[in-house]
Amino acid sequence: MKKETNKQISLAKRPQGLPNLEDFNFKEGVFPTPVSGEVVVKTLYLSVDPYMRGRMQDAKSYVAPYQLNEVITGGVIGEVVESRSTEFQEGDVVIGMLGWQEYSVASAAELRRIDPNLAPISTHLGVLGMPGLTAYLGLLEIGKPKEGETVVVSGAAGAVGSIVGQIAKLHGARVVGIAGTEEKIDYLLNELGFDAAVNYKTTTNLRHDLKDACPNGVDVYFDNVGGEVSDAVYPLLNTFARIPQCGAISSYNKEGKDVGPRIQSYLIKSSALVQGFVVSNYASQFGEAARQLGKWLAEGNLKYEETIVEGFENIPNAFLGLFEGSNLGKMLVKVAEPSHS
Amino acid sequence: MKKETNKQISLAKRPQGLPNLEDFNFKEGVFPTPVSGEVVVKTLYLSVDPYMRGRMQDAKSYVAPYQLNEVITGGVIGEVVESRSTEFQEGDVVIGMLGWQEYSVASAAELRRIDPNLAPISTHLGVLGMPGLTAYLGLLEIGKPKEGETVVVSGAAGAVGSIVGQIAKLHGARVVGIAGTEEKIDYLLNELGFDAAVNYKTTTNLRHDLKDACPNGVDVYFDNVGGEVSDAVYPLLNTFARIPQCGAISSYNKEGKDVGPRIQSYLIKSSALVQGFVVSNYASQFGEAARQLGKWLAEGNLKYEETIVEGFENIPNAFLGLFEGSNLGKMLVKVAEPSHS
Repeated sequence: MKKETNKQISLAKRPQGLPNLEDFNFKEGVFPTPVSGEVVVKTLYLSVDPYMRGRMQDAKSYVAPYQLNEVITGGVIGEVVESRSTEFQEGDVVIGMLGWQEYSVASAAELRRIDPNLAPISTHLGVLGMPGLTAYLGLLEIGKPKEGETVVVSGAAGAVGSIVGQIAKLHGARVVGIAGTEEKIDYLLNELGFDAAVNYKTTTNLRHDLKDACPNGVDVYFDNVGGEVSDAVYPLLNTFARIPQCGAISSYNKEGKDVGPRIQSYLIKSSALVQGFVVSNYASQFGEAARQLGKWLAEGNLKYEETIVEGFENIPNAFLGLFEGSNLGKMLVKVAEPSHS
Repeated sequence: MKKETNKQISLAKRPQGLPNLEDFNFKEGVFPTPVSGEVVVKTLYLSVDPYMRGRMQDAKSYVAPYQLNEVITGGVIGEVVESRSTEFQEGDVVIGMLGWQEYSVASAAELRRIDPNLAPISTHLGVLGMPGLTAYLGLLEIGKPKEGETVVVSGAAGAVGSIVGQIAKLHGARVVGIAGTEEKIDYLLNELGFDAAVNYKTTTNLRHDLKDACPNGVDVYFDNVGGEVSDAVYPLLNTFARIPQCGAISSYNKEGKDVGPRIQSYLIKSSALVQGFVVSNYASQFGEAARQLGKWLAEGNLKYEETIVEGFENIPNAFLGLFEGSNLGKMLVKVAEPSHS
C-alpha cells in the first residue's frame, strides 16, 4: 500500500491580518521512511484550531512559531501503516502532534494509541482531546463555578465553549452562552440546555441583552474571544469573579491594532481575577480530566458536535472558517478513511 | 476646650473627569455631641487617597458612593477630646474611617487606639496603615515574588508603590520602578535601593526603556496606575507572570473614554494572572502584616516618605494633587497638632 508521494501544506508567508489561501503552500513531499523506533502514520483526521494563528506570527508565545516553508503541525489522528517500533503495529489508531500532510513519520514517544471501540476516534481531537481538556481544566481550575453562580461563555458553540457550558451546568451553575448565529443559539438552548444565549451579531445592545440574561451578574466568564464581546461582559462582573482567559480569537488577526476599553478598573471594582492559560499548564491533570470527560460522555451527560470538512485540499479553508465562526463544535478535516472502518 | 463650630467638607457635585475645587463644598457644621459609648475625635491627620475618586461616582463598586452634600469620609488619625466610652479616654490617639471635618463623633467600635511611642502617629495612615497593608498583602498574596525574579511597580514613589518595591527587595527580587519626576526616580534609586527606575513622563519610548531595565522580562507587575504605563509593561510579561491590580489612577478621571490595547492576548501568551483587589479582601491577615511591617520599620529595613499638606482648607487641593503625582510617598493633610506633642 506504499504510496510514492505525500501531499503537504506549509506556511508560504506570515499572514497580515486575516489569513487567506495565499498564506499556504501545497507541495508534494516524499513518502517518509522510518528508522528503528519510528512508525509511519497515515493521516485520518486533522485538527484546525484558533491557537494556530498565533504560531503563524514570528513572535514569542507559549509555542514556537511555525517556520516558513516547513510543514504546519497540529493535532492529528492517524493509522499506523508501517512500524519499526515494538510499541505500535500496523492498523493501530494513534494521536499526536503531526503535520498537515498525508503521511507522517514519528517516534513511538510522540504518539498515543486510541481505542476506537470506546468512542468515535475523532472525539480525541475534540471532547476527549485538547479542547475538552481545555474546557474542563480552565473552567474547574480557574473558573471554579459554584452551584447557583452565573457562568458566561463566549465562543459558546465552539469546541471548547460548548463543553465549558455543559460542565458548568453539571456543577449547578446558571449558564449563559454568547455565539454568532441563530443555529448556534438554538443548539445552546435546545440541545445543550444552556439557561440563556445571546447572539452577539444580531443584538442591537449586547451589554443590555447580557444584563437581562444575567440578572444576578457574572461570577465566571470563560472567555474564548476577547474583543467587543468581552467589553460587554466586564461591567457585569460580580465581586470575586473569575475569568479563565482561554482565547481571544477576535484579536488574533488585528496585530496591535486591537484597542478597546481598558479593563483594569473593572477588575479592581469587583476584585476579579483574569488568568490566561494554555492547557499544557495542567498536563499533570490530563489523566484525571480525560477519565471524567469519558465518563460523562458515556453516561450521556456530555454532548458534542463536530464540523467535519472533507479532503486534504480543504485544510486551509477549514482553518480560515474558524475566524468566520463557521463551525458548530469542533472543526476537523477528514483526510482519509481508516482502513478497517 | 470645646469649640462651637466644626468645619466640614462635602461633595458638592459628582466630578466630571478630573475633579476640581468646585466639586467640594466647605460648610460649618455643629460640634458633635456624643451619646453613651461614643467619643468625640479631633482630627489631626487626614488621608487623601486615589480610591476616593471612585467613591465620588454614583456607581457600583467595592465601597458605597459618597452622597452629595454629606461629609466625605476617609482615614483619619485624631485625638479623643471627649469620651462617653469606657474604652477611650481624653488624649488617646485613635484611627478610624471618619469625616473630612475638624471633629467627628464615633462609637468605640469604629476606632482603634494608636501607641504614639512606637512610631510617628502619621505612619498609621501610611507605611503601617492601609497603604502599607495594601502593598504587603497585594504583593505577597497575589504577586508572590521569588528570589531573582523581576518585579515592576508603577506609581513606584507613591504611598503603596514605595513599600511594594522595598518588600520585593527584601524578598530578593530585582525591582524596577516607574514614576513621573526626576526627584522620584532619584528617591527610588538612591534612597529605596531600587535596581532601576524609569521616568514615564520624560522617556521617548517607555517600552524600550522598560525592556532595558528588565533584561529578564517581568515576573510580577504591581500596578497602581493602568493606562499607557501598563500598556508598555504587558509585552514584557514572562510565563506565569502575576499582576496585582491595585489601582488604575490614570483611568479614574476618564469615565468610559479610557481605551487602549486589549490585554487578553498578552495574558494568554504568558499564562499571566491579573487579580484586582482591595485590601479589605485580606482583613484576616491585617494583624500579621502590620506586625511584619512594624518589625521592618523598627529594624530600618523599610523607609517611607510623607507629603504633608498643612491646613484643613487645603484638603481638596491635596486630593487633587494625587492626580498630578505631586506626592512623594503618602499624601496626608495635617489638620491640627496633638495637644501633647
